[in-house]
Amino acid sequence: MSTQTFNYNHPFTLESGVELPKFHLAYTTLGKMNAKKDNVVWIFHALTANSNPAEWWPGLVGEGRFFDPAQYFIICVNKPASPYGSISPLSINPATNLPYGTDFPVFTIRDMTRAYQLLLDSLGIERVFVALGGSTGGMQLLQWAIDEPERFHRIVPIATSAVLSPWGVAFNASQRMAIEADGTWLDGTPEAGQKGLAAARSIALLSYRHYNGYAITQPRDKNFVAMQESVTYAADNYQRYQGLKLVNRFNVLCYYRLTQAMDSHDVSRYYPSLEAALKRITAKTLVIGIESDVLYPIEEQVFLQQQIQGASLLSIASEFGHDGFLLEYEKIENALRQFINEPSSLHLKIVHQ
Amino acid sequence: MSTQTFNYNHPFTLESGVELPKFHLAYTTLGKMNAKKDNVVWIFHALTANSNPAEWWPGLVGEGRFFDPAQYFIICVNKPASPYGSISPLSINPATNLPYGTDFPVFTIRDMTRAYQLLLDSLGIERVFVALGGSTGGMQLLQWAIDEPERFHRIVPIATSAVLSPWGVAFNASQRMAIEADGTWLDGTPEAGQKGLAAARSIALLSYRHYNGYAITQPRDKNFVAMQESVTYAADNYQRYQGLKLVNRFNVLCYYRLTQAMDSHDVSRYYPSLEAALKRITAKTLVIGIESDVLYPIEEQVFLQQQIQGASLLSIASEFGHDGFLLEYEKIENALRQFINEPSSLHLKIVHQ
Repeated sequence: MSTQTFNYNHPFTLESGVELPKFHLAYTTLGKMNAKKDNVVWIFHALTANSNPAEWWPGLVGEGRFFDPAQYFIICVNKPASPYGSISPLSINPATNLPYGTDFPVFTIRDMTRAYQLLLDSLGIERVFVALGGSTGGMQLLQWAIDEPERFHRIVPIATSAVLSPWGVAFNASQRMAIEADGTWLDGTPEAGQKGLAAARSIALLSYRHYNGYAITQPRDKNFVAMQESVTYAADNYQRYQGLKLVNRFNVLCYYRLTQAMDSHDVSRYYPSLEAALKRITAKTLVIGIESDVLYPIEEQVFLQQQIQGASLLSIASEFGHDGFLLEYEKIENALRQFINEPSSLHLKIVHQ
Repeated sequence: MSTQTFNYNHPFTLESGVELPKFHLAYTTLGKMNAKKDNVVWIFHALTANSNPAEWWPGLVGEGRFFDPAQYFIICVNKPASPYGSISPLSINPATNLPYGTDFPVFTIRDMTRAYQLLLDSLGIERVFVALGGSTGGMQLLQWAIDEPERFHRIVPIATSAVLSPWGVAFNASQRMAIEADGTWLDGTPEAGQKGLAAARSIALLSYRHYNGYAITQPRDKNFVAMQESVTYAADNYQRYQGLKLVNRFNVLCYYRLTQAMDSHDVSRYYPSLEAALKRITAKTLVIGIESDVLYPIEEQVFLQQQIQGASLLSIASEFGHDGFLLEYEKIENALRQFINEPSSLHLKIVHQ
């Protein structure tokens, strides 16, 4: 495993019109690229993860796993605005020599993938064998596979969508409101906005989980009535614990900007329609959806499968909602095995129709 | 219409063991009780409503409506901890001659219904002809109909549950975290915690609505990318608008305590099980559920119908989630008409089995 930084020291213009004098991307690679350069696996991480998929997707990535570094050259880039090494509100703004802070512009999903294109070129890779992404990772994957279809042999968008729904925007808005309610969020200190961020994470978690999952993992004690603020129900404690966990590994300004990046996602922005945009994809596609997903309902996965030429759909029954994409290893692996091993002639026929 | 206050000037002990020296309840009545006292309709309001159902349930209550004051004597009590006239954090604490503020104890759902029993007695009413309640209103209705089955001829619990699910607790916890993130929430001023309360309302709204509803009412503008904080997506603006609307008519401490009241709801606390508690109900029962309800899924309504003897179920298909109970007048009215007009002998047979 190696984590490196790609420095792009030229101006880079964002969709907003903001021009950055330079940017950098932290990325992790596992395994080695073969001579034919046809063993490249590109993994896009989700909202708050980092560039090491072996850490956050251990069931699928790592020694002895489906994506084994012995076989594949696996690349994962930390997304811009995230605090794990790429350009973010924590980076130094060359104009001021101070951290960008709130001056850090919104990187849309498309701005992100345009930055990744430059990294891929710098690595001398023409075509990715298979690219996978769940949630906001899947948004990046779809955007890129639409803008540069020839870059991908196979893609696997998971529990994601072609456009963030108004429902998704409403979840993000609620999180931003919770952050803004924390009067410290703009203080610029490491402690700034921690309570607001914890609340935001708690809200996000509701969109990642499901009624049934909570019933299983956070059952009520029937004899207990919470009366003091310090002793409360399992589900309440769990939300606070998860909030604190994120606070200890994330930054409030980064989080805020990343929710805005999600909101920006709409692959139809530069094309006539969502359908027209998705029809541009030529990669062999496996869409994976979780039937209990509250945030990206299975209907959105069906839509992707219907609009992407020749796409297959794996629909997973899970009690764990959206987060099923991180937990249902076995089902995902079985589908991947079949998907990867199918003769590519079949695929090419579809592509060249 | 007349809004009055019921003053109970004797000690009243809550489930927590806290003894209040007295309490008061604001209640609204519409119409007149007839000589036989058999035209009483009791309506329980939901989380943030008030004691005038003609205001918040205009499709069903009022002149010319199904619950017409010309025919029925309609009673609705403002729930304790709410800022609309009953005892709440805004009331004067006799021990200090200052508002209770955070010293105001948690009124559980059962504490509420025990207080209502005293009001019903004071009105000289033995039995309610029909009692209805949606959401937390339904919680109160179920609790009371279990504790004092003989009080009710007919009950209509709507989009509610016998116990607040861990999922529901998680929604409430997220709201409390957002309130606590607002450093002003304990200031005791009218402006205290307004941003936190707005965020809490925004979160609650997610549990009251549904993916499909937002898609219809808050569509995206495909050419728009939000870059500044002041101009954003319809769904974001909507959440903020709804947050502000509640801030202008509610109080943060009241809201906080009411979420704790919801959390307390578990009709099995004084009975062997949920099933045993629900089997105590002798009233003829119509359960109404909304199929797209995120907060009180239709499975919970089916459970109520299965466990309450002889109960019927109206399952409403609606794009509007939990809030469908306030919007789907026509379907509810049709079911009520049939339910109310059925000969009660049929009911009594079931009761006396």
